[in-house]
Amino acid sequence: MIVVMKRDATDAMIQKTVRRIEQMGLKAHIIVGTERTVIAAIGEKRNGERETLVSCDEVEKVVPILAPYKVASTEAKAEPTVVRSRDLVIGGGHIGVIAGPCSVESEEQIVEIAEQVKLAGATGLRGGAFKPRTSPYSFQGLKEQGLKLLAIAREATGLAVVTEVMTPAHVEMVANYADVLQIGARNMQNYPLLQAVGETELPILIKRGPSATIDEFLLAAEYVLDQGNRQVILCERGIRTFEAHTRFTLPLATVPYLHERTHLPVIVDPSHGTGIASLVPPMCAAAIAAGTDGLLLEVHPDPSRALSDGAQSLTPQVFAETMVTCRKVAEALGRAPMDVSA
Amino acid sequence: MIVVMKRDATDAMIQKTVRRIEQMGLKAHIIVGTERTVIAAIGEKRNGERETLVSCDEVEKVVPILAPYKVASTEAKAEPTVVRSRDLVIGGGHIGVIAGPCSVESEEQIVEIAEQVKLAGATGLRGGAFKPRTSPYSFQGLKEQGLKLLAIAREATGLAVVTEVMTPAHVEMVANYADVLQIGARNMQNYPLLQAVGETELPILIKRGPSATIDEFLLAAEYVLDQGNRQVILCERGIRTFEAHTRFTLPLATVPYLHERTHLPVIVDPSHGTGIASLVPPMCAAAIAAGTDGLLLEVHPDPSRALSDGAQSLTPQVFAETMVTCRKVAEALGRAPMDVSA
Amino acid sequence: MIVVMKRDATDAMIQKTVRRIEQMGLKAHIIVGTERTVIAAIGEKRNGERETLVSCDEVEKVVPILAPYKVASTEAKAEPTVVRSRDLVIGGGHIGVIAGPCSVESEEQIVEIAEQVKLAGATGLRGGAFKPRTSPYSFQGLKEQGLKLLAIAREATGLAVVTEVMTPAHVEMVANYADVLQIGARNMQNYPLLQAVGETELPILIKRGPSATIDEFLLAAEYVLDQGNRQVILCERGIRTFEAHTRFTLPLATVPYLHERTHLPVIVDPSHGTGIASLVPPMCAAAIAAGTDGLLLEVHPDPSRALSDGAQSLTPQVFAETMVTCRKVAEALGRAPMDVSA
Amino acid sequence: MIVVMKRDATDAMIQKTVRRIEQMGLKAHIIVGTERTVIAAIGEKRNGERETLVSCDEVEKVVPILAPYKVASTEAKAEPTVVRSRDLVIGGGHIGVIAGPCSVESEEQIVEIAEQVKLAGATGLRGGAFKPRTSPYSFQGLKEQGLKLLAIAREATGLAVVTEVMTPAHVEMVANYADVLQIGARNMQNYPLLQAVGETELPILIKRGPSATIDEFLLAAEYVLDQGNRQVILCERGIRTFEAHTRFTLPLATVPYLHERTHLPVIVDPSHGTGIASLVPPMCAAAIAAGTDGLLLEVHPDPSRALSDGAQSLTPQVFAETMVTCRKVAEALGRAPMDVSA
Repeated sequence: MIVVMKRDATDAMIQKTVRRIEQMGLKAHIIVGTERTVIAAIGEKRNGERETLVSCDEVEKVVPILAPYKVASTEAKAEPTVVRSRDLVIGGGHIGVIAGPCSVESEEQIVEIAEQVKLAGATGLRGGAFKPRTSPYSFQGLKEQGLKLLAIAREATGLAVVTEVMTPAHVEMVANYADVLQIGARNMQNYPLLQAVGETELPILIKRGPSATIDEFLLAAEYVLDQGNRQVILCERGIRTFEAHTRFTLPLATVPYLHERTHLPVIVDPSHGTGIASLVPPMCAAAIAAGTDGLLLEVHPDPSRALSDGAQSLTPQVFAETMVTCRKVAEALGRAPMDVSA
Repeated sequence: MIVVMKRDATDAMIQKTVRRIEQMGLKAHIIVGTERTVIAAIGEKRNGERETLVSCDEVEKVVPILAPYKVASTEAKAEPTVVRSRDLVIGGGHIGVIAGPCSVESEEQIVEIAEQVKLAGATGLRGGAFKPRTSPYSFQGLKEQGLKLLAIAREATGLAVVTEVMTPAHVEMVANYADVLQIGARNMQNYPLLQAVGETELPILIKRGPSATIDEFLLAAEYVLDQGNRQVILCERGIRTFEAHTRFTLPLATVPYLHERTHLPVIVDPSHGTGIASLVPPMCAAAIAAGTDGLLLEVHPDPSRALSDGAQSLTPQVFAETMVTCRKVAEALGRAPMDVSA
Repeated sequence: MIVVMKRDATDAMIQKTVRRIEQMGLKAHIIVGTERTVIAAIGEKRNGERETLVSCDEVEKVVPILAPYKVASTEAKAEPTVVRSRDLVIGGGHIGVIAGPCSVESEEQIVEIAEQVKLAGATGLRGGAFKPRTSPYSFQGLKEQGLKLLAIAREATGLAVVTEVMTPAHVEMVANYADVLQIGARNMQNYPLLQAVGETELPILIKRGPSATIDEFLLAAEYVLDQGNRQVILCERGIRTFEAHTRFTLPLATVPYLHERTHLPVIVDPSHGTGIASLVPPMCAAAIAAGTDGLLLEVHPDPSRALSDGAQSLTPQVFAETMVTCRKVAEALGRAPMDVSA
Repeated sequence: MIVVMKRDATDAMIQKTVRRIEQMGLKAHIIVGTERTVIAAIGEKRNGERETLVSCDEVEKVVPILAPYKVASTEAKAEPTVVRSRDLVIGGGHIGVIAGPCSVESEEQIVEIAEQVKLAGATGLRGGAFKPRTSPYSFQGLKEQGLKLLAIAREATGLAVVTEVMTPAHVEMVANYADVLQIGARNMQNYPLLQAVGETELPILIKRGPSATIDEFLLAAEYVLDQGNRQVILCERGIRTFEAHTRFTLPLATVPYLHERTHLPVIVDPSHGTGIASLVPPMCAAAIAAGTDGLLLEVHPDPSRALSDGAQSLTPQVFAETMVTCRKVAEALGRAPMDVSA
């Protein structure tokens, strides 16, 4: 890291900082500039050295050179990670589509929608059994009963079940039913939960928190990876900005940017990313064109009767049309077919 | 709520929407405007009706009239809630100051700092035993050992111990040692955790998430209140914006705004809100002037040796000077003395 | 608009508000709810009535029903506006590509790049002669000499020249050389400038300000339209958010959202929207897939020697490859060919 | 500046970059780290060198060490700049209060309000004659007639007139009537305007743009300073964030932060910063406590009849009470009296 000294730092202060750097087991390299002295600390270890130095009075700022994440980085592993579960394949050129309702509402609903999204090309089924809701007065999900219904829908269709787990105490139960465990955006920095799912052998889908930086997002993945679970999918689902016309702001540049930084696959959730059903199809096509490894989509047989997120859910028919469009874009770009297992 | 129909909505569509509103147990009131028809739905119940209506094709938007929170609102209870724990009194005119290190590091450190902050006027002691850290490679806290050290510091000083609990499984353990349970910013929407602390009889301090709206913040409190625990303290600790020169952006207008909306006390954390020690004293004075019910501050005997958050920690001496200034501002505004139990 | 009265508003206050609404020439319609009284004001005129009402003590909030823009709205004109200038055609299904360097640097540079971008399929040539630079110490453009070089490049290629005008006093001069006048993001709310370009007969390309809401963006267009100039192109170029890894955050959902609200064409500038050359090609493809009516791109023969914006400029070769990809996506989506005049 | 090479940069690439740095007249200093090579470029000149280097393929990032502004920095001039105009004194410990209506509406209105704000302690009179309005259909100000009325109010009271100039062509006219020229938030990066006011001999008050970084804000001041006009006042008036309950988010930490970086005085506008009249008094007191050099406030004899910004205007009575409170806070902090010329 680069330690920039204050303009009026004396030689004694500079020497004191050098000693502190050396006590950290790093090599210090002094560079005397025209207006500032700068010290390069070589051998950065990413364990809080930066914080310590920045709190010294004589230090103006500390600039990290290395990214704070390790295992997730393309430097640790160059080839893309491919996550597979049943026919769902995400990463390494494969585009996996996970679709389904916001909440599991009944056996009839989830089986019907599973069959419809499978027919249109999805290989993963989403559906919330445990629902984190902003208000305690909103529908909170069918809980374990919802998980059972998801398992029934999987039986019927073969789709990989992707569902959210909200707290460490539920990890074992949800893992009994799910094929992929989802960490919701509100829990992206719930570290006990990340550690708990990191101990399972299931793939983990982590949704980006609405105010998470890219570094924070990758460090959340790092919590899972650090437990030995290397099957992590990153999901961009929109960030919170001043824009109020959409529910969140969906920054698709995250996709190619992450592809430069990490080997983990990156998928996009345009349902939450826009919050408006009519914007979802064009943003699906755009995500494919931007290079996404997959899509996470809300589809409901009758959005106006959905118990949650109706405003952003596609009808099965619009979903099917969207899949046709996405497939065309993927083919035009020479990407792998979207709905075939690999 | 107000349902705005699309410009080209036909009479049949309007009638369909009216029926849907009536099925919800609400009264519908049609208003034909010059360019739009609008339907007022009277008797709003805050249970997801809005979501359902907004997903109907013929509806352009739905505008809620009532706030989504209930128990937290000044309409439910006009007089300010006063939270008391030992000599710490927050709300109803009382200003409580909670100070201490980011992390508990050793018995010597925590007892020394507790004595120093008490001497300067604090009535609460903060100190992290379980530390949520962005990176899995950073110091994660002393855990239960840290709680024990906090209890020793309480013994020595009588200060009320305020410490974070990160996951439902730890609530009982942390509650055995703490006087006030803190919900960190990353966990503001960790609903199982909010419910678990809501079941204790301790006061709960909830830190605002960095991208939480005011409604979301109050609904997080509502999760606790809904469990029957009415001792909730709200803490503004800065939001994430494009500003990069400070760690977060500290919007002090939240204080008077919340005072108009809720009876719950509102405190401010300028340490996280700025991330820069030199900005903390002026922002403490500003928070008092804005009407805050308390301050949450990081103080460390030697910030440059802190295991976390050194850059934003005050030295005990600067903390003492800051308290003198805050007391002067409080007195100038005719507010209650800051360091006296009530 | 909908006027929500405070909970404790008396009948007298309600009647006073009704009178105030009627004095504005509007009809007032009282709706008594369970917790609030609401007054619908019918005949909204968008002239500041809302502001006046919201400042009344007894009024809690005022919710507008109609959008504040008029001429730009799809309600005023359903069919898409097509802007044409030489072979550049934008809107109504046509995708126009405007490419060139950030700044005009020399005759050789601008003519060479013009020929190269034309060859690859661009029909518009961008190039700054008057450069708004954040620092007064940065290169400010060649000014009128730059305009002359742009005219020479147009002679050589037939491309339509798109260039920025920064202040009303320059409008006439720039209009003598340019085919399309560009209003930069920093000037999106420079109303005297918008009015001045609105008086010309040239098409006007307005870049979205980095913190402009959609309503503010459309109202900026409305300033131009209001002068009688109906040839306005809207350009999404990224907004300012907490994301620091890209220069701005590029919200492509703006494209389909604006298409629902306005008949004006919407183009995208991924060069400024990302600030990183490697992210530009995938975001071009994504913009096409999202339905953009055009692209505005920075291309420089040697980005590392550019006098401005080198980091986000494509080489001519990468630009040509990007055009091939974009054309494939456009064809896959059944959109009009991109480089053919219509 | 610090040039961080890509991980796979070869020796040849490193040498190429060194040569490029040397061609800029800078000294290059190579530091070989464990994972990266870094080059310190000594003698930074702030003329675009950074941009050039960052666009080189082999360079990962370029970190500036020096701030981009010069004349505005505390390094160029340590002692605070004090701006004086008539009895208005801002900076160097003096707190100047500028109050008045958003728009000048009539002679009676402006003279009455001028007398009232003077009585309560203001030494500056604000009032818009040229009004930048988001909508072309809103009241645009009385223009030169408004300037004449401001001059009449100054005659009557002796208050220094602070009013906005929107475009270079009006600078001379506005300067004939005004004591201080205001650059509005929308024009903070209108460089021709900044240069034009920089050529006058009047003090210039620059409002921060709602998405301007601190560097951009100081560089806007630098445009004025660079013309030789050293009487610049910076005004924090709120930034645009995701918070929708207030009109803007008012980050008071800007005040102490800027005081560390610049000698220019910093004032606060809580009227625009909150947009809600009831929040203005506490935020005025908070701004004083945070160390502001002045306040800019909207006061209107009858806010509900204001032609603009009624919702955020104080009545003269509330303004007078607010001044009493602010004076108490200033005295408690040992600051100079607020309403006495110096």
